Amino acid sequence: MTLDDLPTPCLVLDLGVLRRNLAMMEAAVARFPGLRLRPHLKTAKSRAVAELAAPGHGPITVSTLAEARYFAEGGWRDQIYAVGITPAKLDAVAALNAAGAAVKVITDDVEAARAIAAHPGPVTALVEVDVGEARGGVAPDSPALPAIAAMLGPRLAGVLSHSGHSYSGRSVADMAAIAESERRGIVTAAERLRAAGHAVPVVSLGSSPTALHAERMDGVTEVRAGVYMFGDLFQAQLATHPAEDIAVTVLASVIGRRPERNTLLLDAGALALSKDRSTQAAPRDWGFGRVLDLDGAPLPGEALVARAYQEHGEVQADAPLPFDRLPVGARLRVLPNHSCLTAAAHDRYHVVDDGREVVAVWDRVNGW
Amino acid sequence: MTLDDLPTPCLVLDLGVLRRNLAMMEAAVARFPGLRLRPHLKTAKSRAVAELAAPGHGPITVSTLAEARYFAEGGWRDQIYAVGITPAKLDAVAALNAAGAAVKVITDDVEAARAIAAHPGPVTALVEVDVGEARGGVAPDSPALPAIAAMLGPRLAGVLSHSGHSYSGRSVADMAAIAESERRGIVTAAERLRAAGHAVPVVSLGSSPTALHAERMDGVTEVRAGVYMFGDLFQAQLATHPAEDIAVTVLASVIGRRPERNTLLLDAGALALSKDRSTQAAPRDWGFGRVLDLDGAPLPGEALVARAYQEHGEVQADAPLPFDRLPVGARLRVLPNHSCLTAAAHDRYHVVDDGREVVAVWDRVNGW
Repeated sequence: MTLDDLPTPCLVLDLGVLRRNLAMMEAAVARFPGLRLRPHLKTAKSRAVAELAAPGHGPITVSTLAEARYFAEGGWRDQIYAVGITPAKLDAVAALNAAGAAVKVITDDVEAARAIAAHPGPVTALVEVDVGEARGGVAPDSPALPAIAAMLGPRLAGVLSHSGHSYSGRSVADMAAIAESERRGIVTAAERLRAAGHAVPVVSLGSSPTALHAERMDGVTEVRAGVYMFGDLFQAQLATHPAEDIAVTVLASVIGRRPERNTLLLDAGALALSKDRSTQAAPRDWGFGRVLDLDGAPLPGEALVARAYQEHGEVQADAPLPFDRLPVGARLRVLPNHSCLTAAAHDRYHVVDDGREVVAVWDRVNGW
Repeated sequence: MTLDDLPTPCLVLDLGVLRRNLAMMEAAVARFPGLRLRPHLKTAKSRAVAELAAPGHGPITVSTLAEARYFAEGGWRDQIYAVGITPAKLDAVAALNAAGAAVKVITDDVEAARAIAAHPGPVTALVEVDVGEARGGVAPDSPALPAIAAMLGPRLAGVLSHSGHSYSGRSVADMAAIAESERRGIVTAAERLRAAGHAVPVVSLGSSPTALHAERMDGVTEVRAGVYMFGDLFQAQLATHPAEDIAVTVLASVIGRRPERNTLLLDAGALALSKDRSTQAAPRDWGFGRVLDLDGAPLPGEALVARAYQEHGEVQADAPLPFDRLPVGARLRVLPNHSCLTAAAHDRYHVVDDGREVVAVWDRVNGW
């Protein structure tokens, strides 16, 4: 099977690019002796990718209970489920842990901490700390921080932050500054809790850009990152991911041609690409994705998917499209704006390795 | 099982609302004796919904080969696969037809028509006609129209149009005008082909708004519509779908509370809601969805999901949110901007009927 034969639309993963991306992050983390990488599998949602990104069933991060189960059953026991827990989800986590896993949950809420402390099964939790993203978490200097820790008592496993606001940076210097601010925030939180008598074994922070460009990691025990595995058109514009190393593309077929309007229709629309418009606020807006030929070379005129209907994507370009080699049925590839969301539209990866031959098919765990 | 027990996030379908929506469309089509309704199952992707929307295995429309297979195996033989066909997909269609189905494809391309005419298996096709949407299709007066029909020869099944541009209308009068323009276009195309000696048994048009508000259907044999089954926050602002009759919601749990910012975090983010922003250009922008309580009453202050991360949705409102009854773990429901895309994020429906009890679980066919 090759890219010429696969039914379209479908998701293609380039193994060589994936390996380069993993090596880039491993090298970044290896700058800091003793620092552990806990890859976030929310992007890849694949055991085959986890075998490369967290070899030897190393520590991982997950974003759903479905991922927690799938990876635990695959042998990845040491997990952080990094989305604020609800009391109703504790039974599922405790069941995994009773069966041998060590899935740690996170919370920023005293009442949720009370439910964790009172749960009859084995559950431990990290306190989520807000280091500037203003999404989840308590501030490092908040009175809620010691209150939650006290409520958790011996079930406190550590502190955790996510610097998603790094996505608004645009240079390596921006990323380094945000990384240092995150580091100071999470270490401050850990030291406050230690001063109050708690053991704080895990001090966990992360985001792909800050993991790559942090200049200091003192006081941090582990770093989490996920999107670096695949990269995407948005990450490539943060000055942190190589633009040529986006590992996933959507394989699509031409289903319509309009030479008089210089447009093409593809069979990859909103469902195959997602409606993510991350690059809308980036220096270069790639619509719903950048269009490449079957071998990965960009089409002329910065061709992109400008309109996305449920199953149709309309390609537009600033230069004449090569209609002579693009009959109905011709195949193209689309780079994603946001690889986490595009990959989630598909249930498997068709793996290639620097060519058109499909060398493997890897599953994914979608849903909740 | 009730809405209080379901794991979140998940998709809820209200059967009473679905039935009202189906009755509304049936009544609209019944105004025109002899006109056939061919429901589009791209929104629901569910045999259980098809049993209500196309009872007795009536004619249906599909948007993927996966839907074509799933519904053919369920007994719905008379289908139009209403996305421009590629030669590589003809084998799959012909195999279904050889097994007893009658899946008709569509094309607007002479070379694709040549492949259809030459295919060894049973395949027939409608010519796609552009009646103003400027997506797929040839213009009713285009020289390509008779050329494609001539290429198809005896495999010509009819003509088909889609008036997706009706989505830019905002009143019943707008919809009626667009519907009449669509009708004139598709009937013109049919008459041209008949004058050239072709039988044109099927003259198919549609979109939910124009199907509901067309004033004439002379010359049309069937109407296609899909999103009317569920409705959504966008359709409700076209003055064509009742705002209280949106049949699907995403059930979510509170996972974070910020009374000082008057925000909540839900466990329904970009993956559970989709990143569709259809209402951005509508009179009322509902962000990533409108937030209701568990029984379907809107939260105060026109509460909506303002920010969508992969697994987090941030609720904002113009009035104080009722934090006293919204602890972590409390359940809310989110109305979708675009029900086709939100439903596609889920693999099943949890069906309720005017209450919290889950009376059925219905599957869906996602992917391609």
